This record gives sequence, structure tokens and C-alpha cells, in this order.
Amino acid sequence: MKLLLIGFGVVGQGLAEILQSKAAQLKQAQGLSATIVGVITGSKGSLFHADGLDIAELLAAAEIGSLDAYPERTGLRRGLSASEMIAAGDSDALVEMSPTNLQTAQPALAICHQALDAGLHLVLANKGPVALDYANLRAKALSKGLQLRYEATVMAGTPTMQLAEEALAGCEIRSARGILNGTTNYMLTRMEAGLTYAEALAQAQALGYAETDPSGDVEGWDAAGKVLILANALFGSSLTMADLDVSGITQISAADMAAAKSAGQRYKLIAGASPSGGSVKALRLPLSDPLANVAGAANAITLETDLLGAVTLIGAGAGQLETGSAILSDLLAIQRGAGRI
Amino acid sequence: MKLLLIGFGVVGQGLAEILQSKAAQLKQAQGLSATIVGVITGSKGSLFHADGLDIAELLAAAEIGSLDAYPERTGLRRGLSASEMIAAGDSDALVEMSPTNLQTAQPALAICHQALDAGLHLVLANKGPVALDYANLRAKALSKGLQLRYEATVMAGTPTMQLAEEALAGCEIRSARGILNGTTNYMLTRMEAGLTYAEALAQAQALGYAETDPSGDVEGWDAAGKVLILANALFGSSLTMADLDVSGITQISAADMAAAKSAGQRYKLIAGASPSGGSVKALRLPLSDPLANVAGAANAITLETDLLGAVTLIGAGAGQLETGSAILSDLLAIQRGAGRI
Repeated sequence: MKLLLIGFGVVGQGLAEILQSKAAQLKQAQGLSATIVGVITGSKGSLFHADGLDIAELLAAAEIGSLDAYPERTGLRRGLSASEMIAAGDSDALVEMSPTNLQTAQPALAICHQALDAGLHLVLANKGPVALDYANLRAKALSKGLQLRYEATVMAGTPTMQLAEEALAGCEIRSARGILNGTTNYMLTRMEAGLTYAEALAQAQALGYAETDPSGDVEGWDAAGKVLILANALFGSSLTMADLDVSGITQISAADMAAAKSAGQRYKLIAGASPSGGSVKALRLPLSDPLANVAGAANAITLETDLLGAVTLIGAGAGQLETGSAILSDLLAIQRGAGRI
Repeated sequence: MKLLLIGFGVVGQGLAEILQSKAAQLKQAQGLSATIVGVITGSKGSLFHADGLDIAELLAAAEIGSLDAYPERTGLRRGLSASEMIAAGDSDALVEMSPTNLQTAQPALAICHQALDAGLHLVLANKGPVALDYANLRAKALSKGLQLRYEATVMAGTPTMQLAEEALAGCEIRSARGILNGTTNYMLTRMEAGLTYAEALAQAQALGYAETDPSGDVEGWDAAGKVLILANALFGSSLTMADLDVSGITQISAADMAAAKSAGQRYKLIAGASPSGGSVKALRLPLSDPLANVAGAANAITLETDLLGAVTLIGAGAGQLETGSAILSDLLAIQRGAGRI
């Protein structure tokens, strides 16, 4: 399977490391032989070789900070755009890992459509295209017999989408509610231990969980992007951000935390989707709710089903190898679905 | 997909009801058109019709207590054995739902081998054959390009095996530990609320969770059968019951429960499997362990993986529709894997 990678930051490098370290095992146990033929970055240049790039050299060049450091080789092409690489016609799947843009999903969205038009399977870690244009991407993939996969967009490699769409394919899913933002869950856990909001935020920033401008996390927008993905994928909704009821954790005081605790409850930022809509809201959950016991930066989701009742999945929601493993899982699913590529 | 059902008790009737109520939806959304061509019961007779049996009539006859009540029809054959039905050659998959025998796995095991030999996919709710002869069944299925599926044997329809074997296919699973017996988890939950062991057992029996002879549950043997399945399927072990370290909850006193509680811990009957062996043991877990917060008759499992760390799945562990849905999920996986049957 020949791959074009859009983005080669933390996640892309994690994927490359996994493909390198597990190459023999993936080939033997799963029949997957994956080659990276193209890499495009925002600021470090781009590389393309129809026969495949050397992963160790690629990682070394990324480490130095520029793909220009990748050694010269016959057939190597530098500086191609995504369109040019897609048009070159040597790829089976495009992996979109550029930064998420929840306003327009661009420039990734245009590249995703080009890839499908050219007959490439599509794997996304970038939430934008799935959150904002799922229905069109899905219809295009289906019409061309291609797979559209996005396991990494919700709960990193913890296999939320495979659980909902494949393992529970026989059930009707009636609603999904979860802790889909690890940064705020970490902060709430620390606030419950006595820190103020400002102290918890400072800790989350020191650990690299929260960015300097934390608004995407603490005001609920990151989780809201995931709600759109779940609503689109599980319920065929065509919701936009404006349809969601979104708030974050910025208004929660020490007194609120104490009141919840004395009532035997715990605040969690709950992202919910159902056929009738979606929301992100800090809610007080009883301790008997499995979601109430998810601590630190972990993520979790509870799917309510017709045949099985509630099914809850708890696991990592971020991380280099954790997200890389989601992409690997999608590549394996493409491999299983498409036979030998 | 033409099905032979071995066993038509609670689970078999649940499966039939699901296939009937979801027929249109399964056909449209998943391309699955499943027909029951044969049913064999232990004491209610057997029915076979190459064109398919009427599910409503089948359920009505089971309700009356004998398949003899199924109406006469051209081509209907009564009283065939499993071997005769398999030999008739009109089936695509055999669904084994007869009672579990963890000593010999018979008579189901012989029927399972016959089914594979005859080219039928195999779906099991019966734990015996998978616990005692996994390696041989697996090898035979692989050599014939057939699927061997057993989602229902661990945590009913909560998709443990699909999670471990498909959704996490890119990860190495290093260990599995879980609450795999709902009866004992219910009893421990009640004992924590102040009931004695005897009172908790009486309640579990009154609710139909525990049998009159509760030893299979309370001494850990039911969970041990599931440990064998996990060890065989996830780690390629060829363990037998004698290799496992098995104990139950019969020795836990009110004083033990109190001591655990005052230490901020909770007793759970933990079934564990790793490449080095397996066990079933009542353990005191810290409340921060997701398994510690699984209450009542629910089941849960935590898989430790190389790329993702711990992944925990919580859901139903028993029930008519819950187990029927596991079998449906396996049939859908066969459908996906084999294209149109």
C-alpha cells in the first residue's frame, strides 16, 4: 500500500516510526506492506519517490527540521504540491494529518476531494474535513468503492469509530456521550484535588496538554468538532457548529466543585450526540456513571444501543503513538476490505 | 446466508427474534439476508428446510415447548441430526448455542469440526469448543478459508473479541484482565452494600443470575473458561484448566469487604490472561482502576497494549438480546469478509 502523507509533525512521525518498527510483523500477520511514497509538510518542504521513501532518513531529516536534508537519490522529486503528488498516480491512500481547521477545513478539504477523485483511499487525523464535509466525502468514497476512515479524529487510537461502525454494526446506536477532550478532563481532575482553575490550567500547559491559547480546549470547541464527527458518522446528521450547544469549563468555581463532591457527584465535560442534535457541556455525573471515574487526560465514550444497552470504551485520547496507531488501524481496515493493494 | 442453529433456548430464540425484527434493516444497510434452514434442540426436536424456516412459526413452536408444533410444509424434514443437516449441503454457517461443557466440549466439538470440514463458517456462543480446542478449530478454519467466530463467548455482545482482534489489530496486546462473570460481580456489589455472602447469593438466585448450584460462577470456573478463550485467541496459548490458578469469591467475609473499603479499595473477581498464563482471583483494586467502578451484573475488560496503553471496554455480560447481538455481529463480520454469501 503506497501512502501519501499530508503533514509530518508529531503524528506523522509517530506513524512513520510505527510502520518502520512493525514492518515485519504487519507484513506477516496482516499482509500489510506499507510504503511512504510522498510527504508534504507546511514548512519543512516535500518529498516524493514512486518507489518509496526511506523512513529512517525521513525521520532524520524531520529531526533536523527540513526535508531538504533527505539524501539525494535517482527518481526523488522535491517540492511537489499535494495535487502534483496525487496526479503522479503512484499512491493507494492519502493520510491527512495537517492541523485541524474547524472554520473551513481548508486547505485539507480540497486535497481530500482530489484524492478521492483520483481513486485514493482516505485516512484522516485532521478533524476538519470530517466535521464539516462528512456527507460529501462519504458519498464520493462510496460511489468510487473507496474507504473513508477517521479513527484518529476521536479518542486517538482508542477504537471509537471501529467500535461504533463495525463491532456494533448489528445494533442501532441511539446516542453517544463522552469525555472527548483530555486537557479539560485533566484540569477537572486537578481541580477536584483542590487546585484553582488557573492553577490547573498552568499545570496542563506545563505538561503540554494545553496550548498557550487554551480556548479551543477549555471553551469546548475541540470536543465540539468531535461531536460533529460523531453526529455525522453515526446519525447521518448534517449539523454545523452553529447547531451545537457548546460551553466549556471556564465558569466552574471551587465552590461548584465542592458542591458536586458533597452530593456524591463529579464534574465532567460531556460531549453528546444523538439523532436530535449535539452539545458540549460540563455536567455533574453520579459516581456510578463509568464516565465519572475517568481521570486525568484519558478519554471515554458511552454508546447507548438497542440490543446491548450501554457500551463504554475508555482509553488514551491523544499522544504520538496513540494517534499513529489509529492511522495504522485504518490502514489495516483498508487492507482487509480491499484485499491486496 | 443460510444458517444451521444448534440449540434453540434463550440465546437461539433471541437471535431468531433479532433476525426477524431487523431483517429489512440488515438487508438494506449491511447486505445481510440470513435464513434459518435448520434448528436442532436437545429436547424439543429438530427441523430442517433447505428453503428456510419461518421464524415466527419457529418461535411459536418453541414457546409451546416442542418443534413438533411447527406446521407441516412440503420439503420440511423433522428429526435430522446435526450431521445429517450438515451433510444436506444447504448451509453457509453453523451457529453453536448448545450448553457449555468445559470438561470435554462435547457433543458440540465434534459438530463444529464436521461443520468446518463441510465448508461452513462457524459461530459459537458455546464456550466449550473455543476454550478446549481453539488451536485445531482455528487451523482448520484457516486452511479452508472459513471464519471461526466466538464474540458471544466473552462478555456477550459487548464486542470484546472484535475490539482485540480487529479494532486493535495494529497493537500488540500484552495482557487482558477483566470482570467476566456478572453473577459474582453482582454479588460483590451487594456484599459491599452490606449483605452477607449468603444473602447476596440468594438475591442473585432470585434474579436468575445464579443457578441453584452456583459453583460454576462463585468458584470462578465460568470466568476460567473465558480466560482460556482469551489466552488461546490473543496469545496463541494452549493452556488447559489445569494450567490456570482459579479461585472464586466464596472465601470473602464481611470483614474482608470492610478492610478493603477502609483502604479505599474494592473486591473484584478478576480474570486475567497474558502470554505467561492465566488466573481467576478475587483482588482488591484501587478505586482509580476503571474495573473497580464496574457495578452490578456488568462485565468489563482492560487490554494492555504496546501503542495505546490500557483500553477498557465495559458493557453487558449476559442476556438474551445481548448474546443474540454478539452472534449477529459475527454473522455481519462473515458477511463483510466473504462478500455476498
